Order: sequence, then C-alpha cells, then structure tokens
Amino acid sequence: MSSAATGAQMVSALIAAGFILALVAVVPLALVRPDIHRFKWEVEYKFWSPDCLENSVMSINGRFPGPTIRAKAGDIVHVDLTNKLSTEGVGTPWADGTASISQCPIRPGESFAYRFLVDKPGTYFYHGHYGMQRSAGLYGALIVDVAYGRSEPFHYDGEFDLLLSDWWHKSVHEQELGLSSVPFRWINEPNSLLINGRGQYGCSLAAGTCKFNGTEQCSPQVLRVFPQKTYRFRIASTTALSSLSVAVANHMMTVVEADGNYVEPFDVQNLYIYSGESYSVLIKTDQGPTKNYWISAGVIGRKPNTTQALTLLNYVSVHAAELPASAPPATPRWDDYDSMTAFAEKIRALPHYSYAPPPSRAHHGIALLNTQNKYNGQTKWAINNVSLSLPATPYLGSLRYNLKDAFDATPPPEGFPTDYDTMVPASNTECTVNNGIYLLKLHTTVDVVLQNANSLSANTSEVHPWYLHGHDFWVLGYGDGKFVKGVSDRKFNLKNPPLRNTVLIFPYGWTVLRFVADNPGAWAFHRHIEPHLHMGMGVVLAEGMDRVRGIPNEALECGLTANAKVLMDTKRG
Amino acid sequence: MSSAATGAQMVSALIAAGFILALVAVVPLALVRPDIHRFKWEVEYKFWSPDCLENSVMSINGRFPGPTIRAKAGDIVHVDLTNKLSTEGVGTPWADGTASISQCPIRPGESFAYRFLVDKPGTYFYHGHYGMQRSAGLYGALIVDVAYGRSEPFHYDGEFDLLLSDWWHKSVHEQELGLSSVPFRWINEPNSLLINGRGQYGCSLAAGTCKFNGTEQCSPQVLRVFPQKTYRFRIASTTALSSLSVAVANHMMTVVEADGNYVEPFDVQNLYIYSGESYSVLIKTDQGPTKNYWISAGVIGRKPNTTQALTLLNYVSVHAAELPASAPPATPRWDDYDSMTAFAEKIRALPHYSYAPPPSRAHHGIALLNTQNKYNGQTKWAINNVSLSLPATPYLGSLRYNLKDAFDATPPPEGFPTDYDTMVPASNTECTVNNGIYLLKLHTTVDVVLQNANSLSANTSEVHPWYLHGHDFWVLGYGDGKFVKGVSDRKFNLKNPPLRNTVLIFPYGWTVLRFVADNPGAWAFHRHIEPHLHMGMGVVLAEGMDRVRGIPNEALECGLTANAKVLMDTKRG
Repeated sequence: MSSAATGAQMVSALIAAGFILALVAVVPLALVRPDIHRFKWEVEYKFWSPDCLENSVMSINGRFPGPTIRAKAGDIVHVDLTNKLSTEGVGTPWADGTASISQCPIRPGESFAYRFLVDKPGTYFYHGHYGMQRSAGLYGALIVDVAYGRSEPFHYDGEFDLLLSDWWHKSVHEQELGLSSVPFRWINEPNSLLINGRGQYGCSLAAGTCKFNGTEQCSPQVLRVFPQKTYRFRIASTTALSSLSVAVANHMMTVVEADGNYVEPFDVQNLYIYSGESYSVLIKTDQGPTKNYWISAGVIGRKPNTTQALTLLNYVSVHAAELPASAPPATPRWDDYDSMTAFAEKIRALPHYSYAPPPSRAHHGIALLNTQNKYNGQTKWAINNVSLSLPATPYLGSLRYNLKDAFDATPPPEGFPTDYDTMVPASNTECTVNNGIYLLKLHTTVDVVLQNANSLSANTSEVHPWYLHGHDFWVLGYGDGKFVKGVSDRKFNLKNPPLRNTVLIFPYGWTVLRFVADNPGAWAFHRHIEPHLHMGMGVVLAEGMDRVRGIPNEALECGLTANAKVLMDTKRG
Repeated sequence: MSSAATGAQMVSALIAAGFILALVAVVPLALVRPDIHRFKWEVEYKFWSPDCLENSVMSINGRFPGPTIRAKAGDIVHVDLTNKLSTEGVGTPWADGTASISQCPIRPGESFAYRFLVDKPGTYFYHGHYGMQRSAGLYGALIVDVAYGRSEPFHYDGEFDLLLSDWWHKSVHEQELGLSSVPFRWINEPNSLLINGRGQYGCSLAAGTCKFNGTEQCSPQVLRVFPQKTYRFRIASTTALSSLSVAVANHMMTVVEADGNYVEPFDVQNLYIYSGESYSVLIKTDQGPTKNYWISAGVIGRKPNTTQALTLLNYVSVHAAELPASAPPATPRWDDYDSMTAFAEKIRALPHYSYAPPPSRAHHGIALLNTQNKYNGQTKWAINNVSLSLPATPYLGSLRYNLKDAFDATPPPEGFPTDYDTMVPASNTECTVNNGIYLLKLHTTVDVVLQNANSLSANTSEVHPWYLHGHDFWVLGYGDGKFVKGVSDRKFNLKNPPLRNTVLIFPYGWTVLRFVADNPGAWAFHRHIEPHLHMGMGVVLAEGMDRVRGIPNEALECGLTANAKVLMDTKRG
C-alpha cells in the first residue's frame, strides 16, 4: 500500500507465495473467515471550500476527504476505483499503487480493482500517489481493528479520527509547474491546515471571524466526549509539506501506537507528527466538564506562515459551539529540534506477540546522502547526487518481464564520498537525473543510513520524513552530524527499536533503519514531502522480482510493458 | 488528422489499401520522391503571458503556439511526440488523434509517433483533442504547398499565417469542472483573443496601454509588406468558443481557399471565420505606403465581451511600431446573421482538377437535431436527444477487434420527431447520455441534415460550426427554419458546392452536407466549440472497419483493447 498503510497488503496482485505463508503465521485467526469489504469509488474534481474559500478538490464519490475504510485484521478490502477526471490519470491511492513503480496510472474513464488483505491492526491512511494528487485532496483514513478473538493492549471507551493535511489555494498543476520551472518557484507555506479536510483560512478568534457553527464545509468536526472516559485519537498526517504539532488544551496524551505498531506508552503534552506518520494517543477526559477545550495543530520544522487548525473537544453538557475562554494550545517553537528529537527517541516498541526485535546484524548497508541540488537550472533534491526521475514503464513490470530499456540498468551509488562536508552547501551543486534502482537480495537484512546535510543555502538543513513502501523497518537510532561506522552505531537500540514505515532525519543529523528484504516487489523509499518527491527525492528498492506473480493486466498497460507482458504470458500459455 | 487538417492523411497507421490507391490516382507526382519531414516534440506546461498577463500554456518544445509544420503535397510528416506533463494524458494533436475515437491518450512520460502523408495543398492546423487541451494552447499551423510540378490557381508575392484563438485566464481544469457541475457554470466569454498566440488583455488604444514594441510575449507579430504586391494571408481559427470577423483597414480581401479546397475567388471587406475553419485570402498592398494599417479580429455570433485582437500591416518604409491614426476596422454587429449567411453562400468550388462535384443523390440520409438539454441537473448538448459520452476504449480498437462491451451497440436515432418545434425550448429538456455510433456502409453516399433549434432559453439559437474528421464533404445548402424533404432540397447546389471539413448551422436554420463513406475508420463529427463538445455535442461515424489495417500498438493500450488486440494479433500471426 502506498504511504502509511503498510499494514494492509495486496492479495490479488503483488504477493508471492512465500509472503502469503508469512502472513498465515502471524494472523492465523483472520484466515478462518475473512470478511470482504467492497467499495465502489469514483474520483473526480469538485468545487469545495476546505478552508471556507471555494476551490476545487479531488473527491471520491463527491466527498472530500475520501471515505474512511474500516475493517478488522484478516479482512479483505476490495475497491473498484473509476477515474472520472477529464484528462488526468489517477495515481492509485495505494496497494502499492505507486504510478511508475508498481503500476500504470489509471486513465480517464477507466477503472482499476484493488484487492488486499488488511493484516495488521492500526491507524493508516490512503492517498493518491501520482504527480501531486495528494495535495489535490485524494486521501482518506484506513482504520484496521484487531482480529476476532484479539484485543488491543490498552483500553478505551470511544475513538476519533483526525486526518491532518495542508492546503494551498494555488492549483497543484500550477504548483508543479513552478517547481520544475527555471527559475524555480517554490510553493511557499500552505494557506491553511485542515483537520479531516476542514480548515479556516485567515480566521481570527479575536475578531470572531472563524466559523464553528457546523453548517459550512469548512467548519470543524467537533469531538463530543463524556467526562471521565478514555478516548483513542487516531491521528494521521497526509500533509504535502508541513510537519505538525498537535495538542489538546489541558489534557495529556498517552502515545500507544505509531504507524500501525504498538509502542511503549508515554505521556506528552503535544504530539509531533510528520507527513506519512500515524499515531494513536489516549486522552482521559478528566478536566472540568462544564467547558470545551481547544484542539490545535500548527506547523513546526519550517518557519511557519499558516494559522493553526482548530477544533473543539466538547464535553457533552456544554453547547457544541461554545468557544473556550482561554487561547488554543500554542505550537512549540518551530525550530525546537531538541524537543522533536527527544519525542522521536521516546518511541520504543511494546513487547507483544506481533513484535520481533531486529536481526542482530545486517548483510548489506546503504548510505543515502540527502542534498538539495541544481540540474540544468532547475532546483532538485538528490540522493548520493542522483535525482530520481520515474520512467514511463513501471519498474514492477520492466523487472518482471526483463525489459532492458525501460530504465537505467546501472544501480545508483550505495554511498557518498567520505569527505563530503554535510555542514556547508556543496561546492558543486549540480546533480544527475536518473531512474536506476537498488536491487536487494531476497531475505537479506539491510541497513540504510539516511544522512542529512546542508541545503543550497548556508546554515540551512531541514527535518525530513522518509517513507518506505512495502516494509516496516526498525528505527535503530538517530544522531547529530555525520554517521561514522563503528562509532555512531554504538548508539543503536537493538532491543526494542520501534517498527515504523516513516522515519525522520533531523537537520544535519543521521538516522539508521533496518529491514529484511522479504517482500518481493519494487518499492519506493522517499521523502513524504510531496514537492520534494516531485523534485526527485527518492530511491527505488527491488527484491525477489522472480517471485512476483499475478500482476493484474491493467497494472501494466503502459510504456514498454503494454505488449511485452501479454505476449510473454501468451507464450507461456 | 484532427480538426482542419483533413488534407493530410495518415500513412502508417489507419489507412486501408484502397485508400492508398486512391491517393496515387490524385497525386502521382508526389509519390515519385516523397520528402520526409521529421519533428521531435515535447509537450509540457510552461509559464507564458499570451495576453500580457502571466498564466500557463501547454507548450511544444517550450514554445506557444506549437511550431508551424510546412511541407508540400506528397510529402511525409513524422512527429515523435513525448508527453512531459506530470499527470495528464495528451490528446494527440491529429492524425486522426482523437482520444477515445481513434486512439488512446498518450500517457505522461510516453511517446507516440505520428506519420502521415500530406496529400492536399492548403492551410490547416493541428491541435490537441483530449478534454479541453486545445483551450490550454496545444495547437499550431500546418501549411501544405503544392506538389512539385504543380502551381496554385492564383498568384502571390509573399504570405503570412494568422492562427486565431481565444484565451481564458481561468485554467481549463477549472473550466471543465464548471461545465460538468450542478449548477452549471459557464466559461463566459474569453478574456482575450490571440493572433498567433499573442493578444493584449484589456489594452486601450486611447489610453496607450497596448504593447506593440515587440519585446513582450504578447506583443503582436507585425506583418511587414512591400507596396503594390499581393500577399496570401493564411487564416485559421482554433478558437475554443468564438466565431470571428477579421479585417484589414482600407484593404479588400479576395477569398481563394477554404479548408484546403480552392474556391471561386470573391472579394470581401471582412472575413467571417468559425472555429475549425481555415481560409486563404489575397490582399493587394495598394494603399498609401507611408502609413501602417490595423488588422483586427473580433467576436461575432455571441454577444461579445472581449476586446479585438490587433496587429499591424506595416509598409516597409514606415516604422514597424507606428500606430495608424484611424481606429481599427470595426467588428460587424454580432448578430448580423444575414451578412454571415450571405458570406457562407458566396463560397463555391473552383473548377479544378482536384475537384469533383458530388454524386447526384445519396444512398443514406441522417438528420441531426441540435438541442441544448438537461441531464441529471447538468447542462448538456445533444443530437436527436442523445448526448455523446466517449468510452474509455477507443472506437477504432473496439470495432476492429469486435469488443462487444466497449460501447452501446445500438446506434443512436437517425432522425427526430417530425413535429419537434425548433422555434421554442423543448417541453421536456431531459436527454440521454450514450456512446453509440452510426455505422455507414463503405462507398455509400451519405447526406447529413444538421438542424438547429431553440436552446434552453426562449428566443435563443446559436450559430455552430460542425467539423467532420476523416472526410471532406460538399456543402449542398443552407436554409431557415426546419428542413423539409422534397422542398428544402430544391435549394441544393449540386453543380459546384464547396468541399469543406467544417460547416455552419445558423440560428434556427438547417445545413445539408454530402460525403462518400470511402475512408475506413471511426470518425468524430462534432461541434468545433470546445465546451460544447465537452458537453456532449457530437456523434461518431464508422465505416469499413474490416478494411482498417496496421493500427499501431501504442494506439490501443487502454480500455478493453489493451490485451484483446495483442492476443488476437498473436493468434493470427
């Protein structure tokens, strides 16, 4: 699945026999009687006012955000998606519908059936993964409950979903054009932040111009609670750019889940959440029940220029629209990286049957230097000086059918010069643009060092979330400066490192993750920042391509695979 | 070819053996030594200021409009087109690249090779034919000179191309969304008119705010002429909506060519030109050579709200940017339909070896009633109460490979109730939406009656240009009111009716055209008004599908044809 929804895995399309067996071992109950959840979705543009200003959004069945999918572990989700856009292909919202990597985009007027097993309980979301369609609003929540006969390792009385996103008034088409133009035109900070697709552009509590009466498309969904209960807030971020901090006035949050993996509970006053991540927090409604309380989400990690997104925690005895007398929780200082790092380091796996610690050592190591670069006057992001440009033919097909000319057969470098100074802008900022990929041996354990560096401007290095498709990985550690083998790795947590699908690199720092290459396919590993991915910030990992079976025909009807596949299948017979 | 470029026919792709032989008979000289003109085009969005305000256009090789193709009759034009858009397919600019009719749209990152023989000298243009990409600027001129050893039936000393278009500040994506929304949002009149992609939004000659110094993207291309010479102006209109009148101050125009067919020369002070049409006019530079003269193009046929497009006829002894003292030629009254009809009726074929009069009678007659309708709250246009909705699988492929479910097998009605009152809005305005097509017997002669009617509002009926792909047709006659068989047809001109590919229906009137169904393929016949086509105003005619050979694989890699085609070819081969 695309994005944060690694817990759900495709059944019909991309899965090799070995992988199905692995699933059986983990969730045997689920295979006894899988429920099938069927959805019929139509994607089209629609006029909408997400932040009280009219604009157009990419809607599913006429709604924005898309419908929430809810299933229990072991169930099967089947979505028939029809692209009703006029000229745009749809970047399949998931499973692992990454256009150019695992499948062709869905053409206007056409449909595609996604069918996958949701194998792991947790909080996920789906989103479009083609061009910048996530920015255009193609996303929704995916909630997986525990399987029959299982229970969560914590108790709660009710739950709410908060799907966070950022919003621009400029169309994604214009944003994309600016990003690839010479001179470069940055998209700038978002005009608004949205909670469940609802925000308030330029509203002022002081001036009373915000709209909380519930009648507008932009008025927030108020969270109605009973006193002295425990609520699970499932919070996921599908922002295109923004890192966020979320807080509930006067209420502590207990973090219990991250990216569909249980974590050792810890309490925080605010939750740092980066694009691609999802968390569950427990909140006890133990404050005065005669008042409402602000819930706020604000930008961190970049100098903000966007007002907070707000909604209300509404105790049942109070009117739903009664505004609190005190101000909403303030967003922490945007560049308080110590606090962000401390939060990240608090996250430890919960001992649980669903968790195994990582293998004690890796077979293979790859170091990925993140830099901002120039290419023919364009501004790019690059990994080891290579900026990713996706080919027209999906890798899954060209690897499967051994099409030699579909992409560059030379893999990109697995490291960078040891004398590269990560603390200053590069002396030569020009990068190359390529579509080569990393080939991993099936069942090997792989370590990836993500190394941050200075961007094009002096004294600038940004926090970046990285998302890996097709795998959860263990986050072994974070550190400042340049990763030094034999020294930095002494900091590794090999006992209870959290399993995640999204991980951060902090300014000028490094992060190391480990995973087992046991899921045959071609998988994107990229920044979960939409304009950065558009600017080339990602790599593709492929493993066990000879084990991939049953790719649906519709997935490969583009580029060089269009005929090769059918011809070869016909020959085989 | 799409649009006005019927003179150029595809060689490699869509042509049956019989058709090639027919060409041999007409242009034997050309086949002795065809020149091949090769082009490599990349289509992408680009920031551009067509009317002095910055916006984005669909560019070819970074230019707007696209490059002019120039060849001589008998030559072969080969264009390798690469779609560099991020998520949009490209509606192939021609040949007969009508997405959903003769081929699949070209996906982002992919290429398509167009190769066709330009068989008939004349003035044509190419344009995108997918969604509203013509409005986004995907167009250019195509000029075909006479073959070696031939000469034009008129003399001239130099020539200029004037490609006319209309321009909106709102993106085509937003325009399209409004057209299909409930309630309907009309695109309104264009913000500017462009000549060769250059216009002047809201400029005022009185206030001196127009930009004629030649340095801006929007400043007009001045036409530099010598006195006492004859110039051929090739004028083509690729407007999305607007009908236009073009005039050169103080200079008469002699019309000599229409849609690539020679016409009996006639003189006019202004040229009426509708979307999809092309003309050549001769202009003698016989006025005072110490002044420049305005050339103007303005809107007719709809209540205008757009300033004229202007450029200068510049006699060589005068400074190129010297503005004339007198006002530009005024556009005729927008609703002077008598004058427009008189112009249309002046057009007669020139006796010439390239012209044959029509067969004296037709084998088959189809009457097409044009109405504005409603469908589930949407505003539509319909033919015989059916609004066209194009299928995901191109007709050319589904017909060729006999795919039963690709479109509705029941053809739409070939007529309308005789008691339909064309002078008032329909009592029941609801139409149906369908993708059925008309099947014609190969080599039969077909008459089509285009019947205009009142639109949804009382006392409203518009002038509409209709364009037929794949054929020239003879325009037999025009008339007021409802066409009455046995009466109206007495007006037919069977002696020298002009051959055209675009024809008008005037408000509340009828037009009859005749053609021979001798070009195997599936051909769109539609209003050449982009929003109207988007709203369902067109039909598809198919003939001799069993004769179509050699459809390129890339043309059918979508919808149901994607695999069927290859499988069948494999079985055969």
